[in-house]
Amino acid sequence: MNDVASLKSWILDLDLPLPSLRNNTADGERLMEAIGGRLGGRPVRAELEVVSRLPSLLRETGYRVRCTLFEDRDRWILLDVGDPHQPSSALGLAVDLGTTRVSLRLVDLCACGTVAERTIDNPQVRVGPDILTRIHHAERDGGGELQTLIVEALNREIKTLTAVAGHNAADVHAVSLAGNTAMTHLLLGLDCRWMIREPYIPVVNRPPVMRAAELGIEAHPAARIFVFPNVGSYFGGDLIAGIFHSGLHRREETAILVDVGTNAEVVLGNRDWLMACAGAAGPALEGGVTRFGMAAAEGVIDRVRWDEEKGDFAWHTIGDQPPRGICGSGLIDLAAVLFRAGMMDIRGKLVPSRCGARLKMIDDVAHLVVAWAEETASGEDLMIAQADIDSLIRSKAAMYTILETITMTMGMNLNELPAFFVAGTFGVFIDPVSAVTIGMLPDLPPERFIPLGNSSLEGATRLLTVPGSLAEIDRIRDGITYLELNVNQAFMNRFSAAKFLPHTNRALFPSVRVPE
Amino acid sequence: MNDVASLKSWILDLDLPLPSLRNNTADGERLMEAIGGRLGGRPVRAELEVVSRLPSLLRETGYRVRCTLFEDRDRWILLDVGDPHQPSSALGLAVDLGTTRVSLRLVDLCACGTVAERTIDNPQVRVGPDILTRIHHAERDGGGELQTLIVEALNREIKTLTAVAGHNAADVHAVSLAGNTAMTHLLLGLDCRWMIREPYIPVVNRPPVMRAAELGIEAHPAARIFVFPNVGSYFGGDLIAGIFHSGLHRREETAILVDVGTNAEVVLGNRDWLMACAGAAGPALEGGVTRFGMAAAEGVIDRVRWDEEKGDFAWHTIGDQPPRGICGSGLIDLAAVLFRAGMMDIRGKLVPSRCGARLKMIDDVAHLVVAWAEETASGEDLMIAQADIDSLIRSKAAMYTILETITMTMGMNLNELPAFFVAGTFGVFIDPVSAVTIGMLPDLPPERFIPLGNSSLEGATRLLTVPGSLAEIDRIRDGITYLELNVNQAFMNRFSAAKFLPHTNRALFPSVRVPE
Repeated sequence: MNDVASLKSWILDLDLPLPSLRNNTADGERLMEAIGGRLGGRPVRAELEVVSRLPSLLRETGYRVRCTLFEDRDRWILLDVGDPHQPSSALGLAVDLGTTRVSLRLVDLCACGTVAERTIDNPQVRVGPDILTRIHHAERDGGGELQTLIVEALNREIKTLTAVAGHNAADVHAVSLAGNTAMTHLLLGLDCRWMIREPYIPVVNRPPVMRAAELGIEAHPAARIFVFPNVGSYFGGDLIAGIFHSGLHRREETAILVDVGTNAEVVLGNRDWLMACAGAAGPALEGGVTRFGMAAAEGVIDRVRWDEEKGDFAWHTIGDQPPRGICGSGLIDLAAVLFRAGMMDIRGKLVPSRCGARLKMIDDVAHLVVAWAEETASGEDLMIAQADIDSLIRSKAAMYTILETITMTMGMNLNELPAFFVAGTFGVFIDPVSAVTIGMLPDLPPERFIPLGNSSLEGATRLLTVPGSLAEIDRIRDGITYLELNVNQAFMNRFSAAKFLPHTNRALFPSVRVPE
Repeated sequence: MNDVASLKSWILDLDLPLPSLRNNTADGERLMEAIGGRLGGRPVRAELEVVSRLPSLLRETGYRVRCTLFEDRDRWILLDVGDPHQPSSALGLAVDLGTTRVSLRLVDLCACGTVAERTIDNPQVRVGPDILTRIHHAERDGGGELQTLIVEALNREIKTLTAVAGHNAADVHAVSLAGNTAMTHLLLGLDCRWMIREPYIPVVNRPPVMRAAELGIEAHPAARIFVFPNVGSYFGGDLIAGIFHSGLHRREETAILVDVGTNAEVVLGNRDWLMACAGAAGPALEGGVTRFGMAAAEGVIDRVRWDEEKGDFAWHTIGDQPPRGICGSGLIDLAAVLFRAGMMDIRGKLVPSRCGARLKMIDDVAHLVVAWAEETASGEDLMIAQADIDSLIRSKAAMYTILETITMTMGMNLNELPAFFVAGTFGVFIDPVSAVTIGMLPDLPPERFIPLGNSSLEGATRLLTVPGSLAEIDRIRDGITYLELNVNQAFMNRFSAAKFLPHTNRALFPSVRVPE
């Protein structure tokens, strides 16, 4: 693999030495040797169908040939050959296969740029919104329905995306897919039942590089699909893809990567080691927690700031529409604003004397009016209950405790991390200053927080645009030490200490001014 | 590949470590690691379909599993898994794909023994008896008809052979096939047109290990087919398989291997080097040369000896039937007998004074009556003409000259070879003493001539019964230096000298008593 860096893309144009009585190697081997000379390392394997097209192609083009390559763990795969005088139309498809949403990106394998992109709902939601429901469903029916749902959706999207770009499905030569362990198992038609029963065994950790056609995916006949490997039932290929995208594993200095969903998944490490753990961060940060809580969408409050002039807080909605609810980043902003204004105390309780008219008691429970009835989409007050805030506080405490535990395990100090990668939409939308204010994230300078966007999709894309990356992905996977979070008394003590704003130990948050 | 020697067959029974919270590797990787621990070297790859059956199989058998393996150049392939408490029914099929005849042998992959065996006519004979006609035919129709003919024949034979043994086609997990370069190209559906035009380029030297299903071969769904590699258009996988079977390439001392058909193909070498050449040996040794000349079959004279009592020669026919013709071994015996009796001179001419009534002049051409009308199947005299003998003499001279040339090139002496392997039916039927007497083979003690039988079929069988042989086969192929026979004046001089019986230089044949 010495020479891979010289490979700019999966498309390689080659001039072959002409055959002669002294150089009478077969057409196939002539090409394989030329490719091997450029790629080095692993042997090159071609489809018989590709080899069968060589005799006429080589003699028509004067032994110039355009190769579309891909890789398996122990071999380079020659997927297609063509005339280099013609424009290339080889595409790759990167997929982030999420439990709720599926993001797809069509990539030009020659120019390595994005051709089209789209996010859809995972059609398996129809069967069950969460992983557990789907696994139970698959146990009953053998998994066929769930597999068909996702494969059909991929086929539909391949058709749509390629058509948009003036291509067709047969131009797609490679699919790179990252998802959690359950989602990838369901796609592959593998039995998930042992993933949810002690000792939680998946069917496969490194799915083989396969023909896409084996899964019913409609693309180029030789197209291959690479599914990112998982570390176990609870640490999936989406996270491996995220690390791969972040470059955490290439850095000399130790950094941290956090992916927040229902679980907070955390990876700490550098080019020499990687340690991972995951813990329930609580649902406060996804949609659905408050009556108006929801995922980012039009009309959702995503930002809250303090308006000095009005002496009150002000919100911003996505698309500048009348508010319909509040998402994770808005909730964190709101909590930070309330805390700074003294409207919420260090225990996260609303302070009636400071909240004024915004505080309403409903069934003896304190509620905060975030937006007044005349401002909202529904024409009713948009409120959050004290219980919603309590839930956020538990979530932020859990998050901080997990971060603290993994860094402590490695004898490190959270406040010394030179880089803090935040994956997912959470990372894109969250205001790190607000998150630090409530003690959800450590007290680092804001510029050290690096949002990664959809790091799973970005990692899947990288495989298609940086040839020869598979070994790097396997090294990430193999290099991860998984830290089982031992919820013992020490952990619970740290958790309790983190349930205050920003923290019981204020020295950990020197930048946060705690109102008197 | 350190541990391959410990693998007794392609069937491997394994006990896997049980999963636990501390050992929560996936089912697939658990098995791959166990196999890798036994095989070493190359990585192990499994069919997704095989992996998908693991969860229930492993939990039913208590993590005991029977693996059916095969190999590709850079990987071990896990073809199938099963319950080791059940009897194994995994079969392999070895095929010698000849231009005229196709030999098939069904092998038990577990016991490594022959289950059934059969030889059929190559159905492509219908299109054309020789390679050239078939290649021209394929040029016209794209090769589809010839490919279909042979694939259908293989499918028919797989059905027949497996049924005979109480199995079915789906039990065949591996096919190992050796044939000349044109025959294997036609099977693979590859364009042969450049093989017969300077500079004689095949499409492929090392056909990829493929799913048998890709060629339309009906066997186990995961069954693989291995086609022996060729050195070029005129040195095919059948010869590589022959070397592989002979063990020439494993010997410390230099030995020689000869395969006689229309061409004489010769390989000289040892474990350090291999040199090959081929030359037209003339058709005298195949059927069809004399009016009664034919391939070995019932009623064909295969042996001729001198009967001292009668003072005449005596023949033997296959199946002890009335004679219908004479085959190569009979002809060589006959020539040797005639020569020793003085009925043929050192130039190979029939001597009228010694032949007596057996000599008949027909159209001024001398004929020898081999069997009298009352003895033969047809009721007519079975004769050979002087021209038939002349043809044999040219063949034997060509053969000896080729043998002399290749040994001379390596600075060796033909009469010092410790072993002389003779492949094919020629090797089985020929009497080496007769062949030495007429100077066709060098003057070695008879025990040094080792008949190999159908060495191509034996080589194909060996791949199925000696796991991990593929690298050895590739080493043979890569190690061969092909010697172009330069038919220059020196060669022609050697050829002329070899046209006498046994040779102009009698010192080369000290054991042969030349009649005065």
